[in-house]
Amino acid sequence: MKLGVFRHRGGEPHVGRLDGDVVIDLGPGDSVLSRVLDSGDGPEVPVSAVQWLLPFPVADYVDFYSSLEHATNLGRMFRADQEPLTPNWRHLPIGYHGRAGTVVVGGTEIRRPHGQRKVGDFGPSQKLDFELELGFVIGKPSRRGEPVPVEHALEHVFGSVLVNDWSARDIQAFEYVPLGPFLGKSFATSISPWVTTLDELTSVPGVEQDPVPLAHLRIENFAYDIPLEVELNGEVVSRTNARNLYWNVAQQIAHLTSNGASLRAGDLLATGTISGADERERGSLIELTWNEGPFLQDGDEVVLRGEPLGEVRGRVV
Amino acid sequence: MKLGVFRHRGGEPHVGRLDGDVVIDLGPGDSVLSRVLDSGDGPEVPVSAVQWLLPFPVADYVDFYSSLEHATNLGRMFRADQEPLTPNWRHLPIGYHGRAGTVVVGGTEIRRPHGQRKVGDFGPSQKLDFELELGFVIGKPSRRGEPVPVEHALEHVFGSVLVNDWSARDIQAFEYVPLGPFLGKSFATSISPWVTTLDELTSVPGVEQDPVPLAHLRIENFAYDIPLEVELNGEVVSRTNARNLYWNVAQQIAHLTSNGASLRAGDLLATGTISGADERERGSLIELTWNEGPFLQDGDEVVLRGEPLGEVRGRVV
Repeated sequence: MKLGVFRHRGGEPHVGRLDGDVVIDLGPGDSVLSRVLDSGDGPEVPVSAVQWLLPFPVADYVDFYSSLEHATNLGRMFRADQEPLTPNWRHLPIGYHGRAGTVVVGGTEIRRPHGQRKVGDFGPSQKLDFELELGFVIGKPSRRGEPVPVEHALEHVFGSVLVNDWSARDIQAFEYVPLGPFLGKSFATSISPWVTTLDELTSVPGVEQDPVPLAHLRIENFAYDIPLEVELNGEVVSRTNARNLYWNVAQQIAHLTSNGASLRAGDLLATGTISGADERERGSLIELTWNEGPFLQDGDEVVLRGEPLGEVRGRVV
Repeated sequence: MKLGVFRHRGGEPHVGRLDGDVVIDLGPGDSVLSRVLDSGDGPEVPVSAVQWLLPFPVADYVDFYSSLEHATNLGRMFRADQEPLTPNWRHLPIGYHGRAGTVVVGGTEIRRPHGQRKVGDFGPSQKLDFELELGFVIGKPSRRGEPVPVEHALEHVFGSVLVNDWSARDIQAFEYVPLGPFLGKSFATSISPWVTTLDELTSVPGVEQDPVPLAHLRIENFAYDIPLEVELNGEVVSRTNARNLYWNVAQQIAHLTSNGASLRAGDLLATGTISGADERERGSLIELTWNEGPFLQDGDEVVLRGEPLGEVRGRVV
């Protein structure tokens, strides 16, 4: 099922189910996570006539770093004198919290952020980038103090979206030691307009994890077979697949809650940039151009696509 | 004004104004940020008879790192071969996003978190710590894409709370490179039960900032004169003052929004651990014991105090 929140002819937000080129109106609401599943079908609206809104209020937004190829590429670029992967990388799915309040629906214009690009140098980012990611939306909360067992983690997932985790590489580079990304990421994160429930995704065996994860993260590795592409101004600049990811969402949830942290409905867990082994499979400009640029220019439009998740679109202004 | 959300005799949440040893009932509600200020006074309830609840739903939680002494102490401990302050520290108020969904009201029991303490070693944290912080609560939102000028930043602040940003130092040490703290912090953050509006705080000149901050962060430095103490199992182990902070909350807001990020009502901005120049003015056990411990034991009770903000209490279980 593909569920979104839409507005029709300037009316109030309604929850709708996408069915081909029509949206079936399931009634008023501002979140696909409300109890809309039992609602009878309402009138149909052509998809071309609706304005998509954010499909659910985002509770906490977590961005993981679960592509081995992406983490390796960034390690090579920024810590050339060291092992590309930090010592923790293969032992836990590294992640950090992002800004939930600036997650926007695909189609929203992205204003180029300002920030400190180096000491004393404040101005518009000159290294604005996209990041091709998948996101998982929590539907079923968990209780504080009660870690979610990895084998039950998927029961908490409502569905999936595409995520463009826009990044200002120059702002990020100056700020991120020692407490991680902040303003380099927090200006905007775009998600695709509808949430696709998990049953519509194709689960396939995941890559081999070496070493075998600790007991609380141990589960037969799996991934979702979602062919992905990045289109920049009408030209496909990268093609990859979500099945390349090293850590799976069940492990991410087990890790996130292993310290007793709770989940809320509306939590958004993004995978981190998805890259593949080949040069043409890289999910960000910093990797595609090996930090040489060009980065995003004003007016550039980025479209991330991956069926059955649809697309997430954004233009830089 | 001191506002909180309370429950009386198992009833529904009400918003209340603290007045000495009574709470004046302002009517049903789960957030002090709702429009309660114009409400007439309702019945009085003895403060001893109420159960405090979380005073507002936390939107985004940001933890800054704004004490020069704290940042210097941690730099000395963990990066002994380098300058204690990272090159960015004096040029912007470093911060990162924390987990909004695990902010709890003072008095809530804190379960010792589990996590990876080093490679392959998962178990209860052996370095559980408190952090003495102040928090500022956003009452007036701002729009995405419109940075808040530093001279108008205080207009967005509703009031202040005390914050105990519980930290598992061993979990944090293993995970935090390169994307910052995650599970070492996300299990729980305690805030004091009532929010004290800004007009009740005493503003004083702040420390000299060297170098002079960039234009968008430039404002005559100020701080709040709030004497603070940490009590561990009935014994005061640290005394300091919020006036020691290097960066002020107006600068934190101007920085946070400088890239176009918006504020929401309910955003919580914490200062980071507040330490002073003297050894007895350190706001965490890792500093007080210079990472030798002892850290918090099961059953330990930590109380942070600072008038007029009251106290935030938590027992480790």
